[in-house]
Amino acid sequence: MLVVMKNDATPDEIERACSAIRALGLVPHPIPGDTRTAIGVTGNRGAIDATALAGLPAVLELIPVTKPYKLTSREMKSADTVVRIGSVEIGGPEVIVIAGPCSVEGAEQTLAAAHAVKRAGARMLRGGAFKPRTSPYAFQGLGGAALDILARARAETGLPVVSEAVDTDRFDDVAAAVDVVQIGARNMQNYSLLRHAGRARRPVLLKRWMSGTLEEFLMAAEYLLSEGNRDVILCERGIRAFSDYSRYTLDLSIVPELKRITHLPVIVDPSHAAGRRDLVLPLARAAVAAGADGLLIEVHPEPDRALSDGPQSLSPAMFAELMDELRVLAPAVRREIATAA
Amino acid sequence: MLVVMKNDATPDEIERACSAIRALGLVPHPIPGDTRTAIGVTGNRGAIDATALAGLPAVLELIPVTKPYKLTSREMKSADTVVRIGSVEIGGPEVIVIAGPCSVEGAEQTLAAAHAVKRAGARMLRGGAFKPRTSPYAFQGLGGAALDILARARAETGLPVVSEAVDTDRFDDVAAAVDVVQIGARNMQNYSLLRHAGRARRPVLLKRWMSGTLEEFLMAAEYLLSEGNRDVILCERGIRAFSDYSRYTLDLSIVPELKRITHLPVIVDPSHAAGRRDLVLPLARAAVAAGADGLLIEVHPEPDRALSDGPQSLSPAMFAELMDELRVLAPAVRREIATAA
Amino acid sequence: MLVVMKNDATPDEIERACSAIRALGLVPHPIPGDTRTAIGVTGNRGAIDATALAGLPAVLELIPVTKPYKLTSREMKSADTVVRIGSVEIGGPEVIVIAGPCSVEGAEQTLAAAHAVKRAGARMLRGGAFKPRTSPYAFQGLGGAALDILARARAETGLPVVSEAVDTDRFDDVAAAVDVVQIGARNMQNYSLLRHAGRARRPVLLKRWMSGTLEEFLMAAEYLLSEGNRDVILCERGIRAFSDYSRYTLDLSIVPELKRITHLPVIVDPSHAAGRRDLVLPLARAAVAAGADGLLIEVHPEPDRALSDGPQSLSPAMFAELMDELRVLAPAVRREIATAA
Amino acid sequence: MLVVMKNDATPDEIERACSAIRALGLVPHPIPGDTRTAIGVTGNRGAIDATALAGLPAVLELIPVTKPYKLTSREMKSADTVVRIGSVEIGGPEVIVIAGPCSVEGAEQTLAAAHAVKRAGARMLRGGAFKPRTSPYAFQGLGGAALDILARARAETGLPVVSEAVDTDRFDDVAAAVDVVQIGARNMQNYSLLRHAGRARRPVLLKRWMSGTLEEFLMAAEYLLSEGNRDVILCERGIRAFSDYSRYTLDLSIVPELKRITHLPVIVDPSHAAGRRDLVLPLARAAVAAGADGLLIEVHPEPDRALSDGPQSLSPAMFAELMDELRVLAPAVRREIATAA
Repeated sequence: MLVVMKNDATPDEIERACSAIRALGLVPHPIPGDTRTAIGVTGNRGAIDATALAGLPAVLELIPVTKPYKLTSREMKSADTVVRIGSVEIGGPEVIVIAGPCSVEGAEQTLAAAHAVKRAGARMLRGGAFKPRTSPYAFQGLGGAALDILARARAETGLPVVSEAVDTDRFDDVAAAVDVVQIGARNMQNYSLLRHAGRARRPVLLKRWMSGTLEEFLMAAEYLLSEGNRDVILCERGIRAFSDYSRYTLDLSIVPELKRITHLPVIVDPSHAAGRRDLVLPLARAAVAAGADGLLIEVHPEPDRALSDGPQSLSPAMFAELMDELRVLAPAVRREIATAA
Repeated sequence: MLVVMKNDATPDEIERACSAIRALGLVPHPIPGDTRTAIGVTGNRGAIDATALAGLPAVLELIPVTKPYKLTSREMKSADTVVRIGSVEIGGPEVIVIAGPCSVEGAEQTLAAAHAVKRAGARMLRGGAFKPRTSPYAFQGLGGAALDILARARAETGLPVVSEAVDTDRFDDVAAAVDVVQIGARNMQNYSLLRHAGRARRPVLLKRWMSGTLEEFLMAAEYLLSEGNRDVILCERGIRAFSDYSRYTLDLSIVPELKRITHLPVIVDPSHAAGRRDLVLPLARAAVAAGADGLLIEVHPEPDRALSDGPQSLSPAMFAELMDELRVLAPAVRREIATAA
Repeated sequence: MLVVMKNDATPDEIERACSAIRALGLVPHPIPGDTRTAIGVTGNRGAIDATALAGLPAVLELIPVTKPYKLTSREMKSADTVVRIGSVEIGGPEVIVIAGPCSVEGAEQTLAAAHAVKRAGARMLRGGAFKPRTSPYAFQGLGGAALDILARARAETGLPVVSEAVDTDRFDDVAAAVDVVQIGARNMQNYSLLRHAGRARRPVLLKRWMSGTLEEFLMAAEYLLSEGNRDVILCERGIRAFSDYSRYTLDLSIVPELKRITHLPVIVDPSHAAGRRDLVLPLARAAVAAGADGLLIEVHPEPDRALSDGPQSLSPAMFAELMDELRVLAPAVRREIATAA
Repeated sequence: MLVVMKNDATPDEIERACSAIRALGLVPHPIPGDTRTAIGVTGNRGAIDATALAGLPAVLELIPVTKPYKLTSREMKSADTVVRIGSVEIGGPEVIVIAGPCSVEGAEQTLAAAHAVKRAGARMLRGGAFKPRTSPYAFQGLGGAALDILARARAETGLPVVSEAVDTDRFDDVAAAVDVVQIGARNMQNYSLLRHAGRARRPVLLKRWMSGTLEEFLMAAEYLLSEGNRDVILCERGIRAFSDYSRYTLDLSIVPELKRITHLPVIVDPSHAAGRRDLVLPLARAAVAAGADGLLIEVHPEPDRALSDGPQSLSPAMFAELMDELRVLAPAVRREIATAA
């Protein structure tokens, strides 16, 4: 249910509508827009008896929302959500490229990567501190030490930083240290983590899991929004199909479809989808052409010595070439991309 | 790496081998067998320099293990693992049927289900206290109150109980209240939860996620075993393919394949795979015929009034019929099944 | 649209109803039942104006059929179709096992296989004369010479024979030489071949292709039935999912679902699904337990010397063991299986 | 096996090498290049005893080819194959857009579509005469009459025409009437049709089937090339995964991968993949950005009245907009696109 307020509704009238919604045992979510405010209503298990609401002052219209996603839908909020991280705006006219190593392996490697990706025009730095690994015997990340290194890289380059939190215990440490917290594909339906992240004050980058449907993906985001966190960035990173030449099958069709039904920004991670360096450039171009608001690209100063995901990491030179290509491509789809330093 | 000790190796000699392994920076996992002990070695990232170990007294053989799964593999432990929960043995000659409601909705419903499934021959009770739900607005389970109800059902029926833990925070509460803790499909690669469960003293029922490969499934179990928990039950519950008539595609081929490469018991959940009541009986029969060590079946006293997964829940009468059928079928594949009370 | 005639409708009244249907530009398909005749109506693109039909003598009822499958549906014909091939009845109480080599490689190999599978209790012989091969450079079958060898095997053993026709050109030769013509998975949507086979006088064994939905599978059968061939056997042989340990993912859930919505017999080919000999026995058991009317099993006198699909072929000894197991299992699901000679 | 001849090898020496290859029971395929000729060798089932060949005059090198695809591989022919259809070159610097209605429904509709797509810059016309339809009761195409209409559209517009042949019987009629014969996704492994098409003198547009792996796709093309037809265009049109918002999952990653391992041109059909009009534009852009050599787009003068695939057909105005967008995009990936008339 969406309660649309009149253009001239006063803050007081809006609050009165919220109270009335609460009185029905439901939860109001005011969504201020340019011209008017709408109030999303959640918490109902079935149809809502809306009679009480329709009669309130300054209520223009009641719109039933039948899709299970509510706060994430364009019906609730038609304007694009722009997630602001310092001077970086994800979901605006600029295509934001986030780049860096899969794992923070040490200060030297991370700083080298950070400076290289900044030089080439990346607007944010990525780097894994806590790594979800298929094998318990594989390198699991440097943990807290990695967060310190990322902080130093941010201080040196000015790039905001994104890093993954793998559980609620360490979420707050990650959130305190970085600018955007990533929830990885394997945790897309870890609802405890989603609720925790929904109550945090940090933007969240939410990855689609390998067998997540569009609806499941949006409902995962709905967990975040319903807890109050509106700064959510969706990220397609490949689904599991029968592909035998790439690690996953990048589902680029979901980009325009998501842009149609949700107001949240959508970015694409071609590196994890491909699992192979040589496919990253063409897939990055295709993602921008499909309408992605940003890209997540793995870059390592020495890809062949990476402790994780080396085969899919670009060298700094390859990344610079990718950025050069995207700088030519973006305007052709009416987007911008940052110039190289 | 597997260090096979001679038949007559003394406890002292075994401990000496373990010390030598630790001295190499590795972790020894002694696996006592009927005739001899083998010691699994983990913690290595590459090849191990085994020279030091080969010369130890009472060491028969060093076997390199190339598969990423080690402690879960038959190469490490050739005999079937039998998980004992009171008088129930999963992985032995009996096919163990675990049944009960998807969610604990109240005492009356749960007790009715518990008595009904016990009467029909179920050996364990299932019931969800904490439910991972796609929608944040859906019924999320009764939580702690449900654990109390399950405890009462156990007291009344004598059936051991399995229930899901969805995060590390509440794992210990669940583990304290039930006999087997379930890790759900969506958490199969929640490595923090796996590590936590691996350090617990409770058997774990680990479900395969919808896009988990066989290797990923075993590696998830490997997390549990590598932390010391050997009482792990694997559960196939359907994968995500293009099926349009059942909720998931039950992958029964994985049952004999898992039995071949791992010593852990393997059970099947036809209820979640099918998502439809009428497919549960034939799939339950097929699972037993394929070699499953047990079944997980949803039963609700009034399926049409269930708060979750009603369409796939059997009524007590349908469940009794299913058990009757399985009692005829099991001996045909040289297995037993409990008689009805 | 289904026109249900009264119990006492005369042949003349039935013919009059058919004429009325034709007069509407539609095609009548009379389906005689035990107690009454129903007339399937096809050829309509939208809703039918049924007024003219309702007023005809001896018409009991008009039932709109909304599913795209008509002649294949249980709504059209509720009783099981039993396909009779000599004394073999597929779709009746007996589980029919069809066995033999993937390819006919020579008289000696085929005769050895035929005698072996007959001895073990197989009721039909399979053997490929024309092989659809992924590579143009692979062995493509002996063609016409193979058909002669199959005829000889039939003469010697008395077993009816099934072999695949890969195109319309050679369909009639195959149909003339064998008892059942197989349409392979890759040709499930080869509509020219389906139409041709639908006009033939031979029973057809139709395999589901690797990405065929249930509806597409039934619509392929609908092509056969709508051309007049009612002797159609459906065969599940594995779908393409992300499986990495078996060649395809055997979708056994489709067996009970097909049995529910179509009257046609349903068999299962575990050999092609698994692609591995050691999975064939458990999957064959599971298929029978799921309700399959028959099995298609590859048997080669010397599997390791087979020109095609050796890794999945059983030896005669393994096949005899499989039959022994099934003879114990079938009665547990109220089915029979032929005794060994 | 690839026999590389020296730069100065004479026609006579090349023929002598071919004879030697034939003498070994193998088939030589001379592939003239700019600087030298290579001879592909097929027909071997195992390793070839190459001693006899190595000693021939003017033979520079023998290269074993381990991949099952030979004639389609870049190892056999490193330069891009450019398929020429009149003045249209597929595989060269220009991105070729082929557009038109799914089915030829009549002269008026087809001519309107043909003129509209030409005006907007399409270089070829598509239109179905024989339609493979899931249902035997659905519109199956106008057949021969449609071929006449397509011929008239070609005469009026000068656009070369592509249309599908669904079986060997009618292949030659289609081939006589059109410039490029399409083999549809459902026939990708119809080997009889492939062999027939391989012997034809018409370029072939080969579509990937919904569950075809990259290797199976190339091996289907290998059938065409091994029969002598070198003018083969590959077309990605979506695979079957678990997608629930688009008809198929467009696998754009295969575009750069195919370009890497085969010399054949690769085009993309976003219309059939999406099954929805509104996804066609972003996917068309993404395909070009990923490196596609062309596009296949459905355009209908009145999409809402189309007899087949209306929901995915663009109107002439939408198509003109798509072409305008591509004209801006193509230069950004160093490709050209025809100007509008």
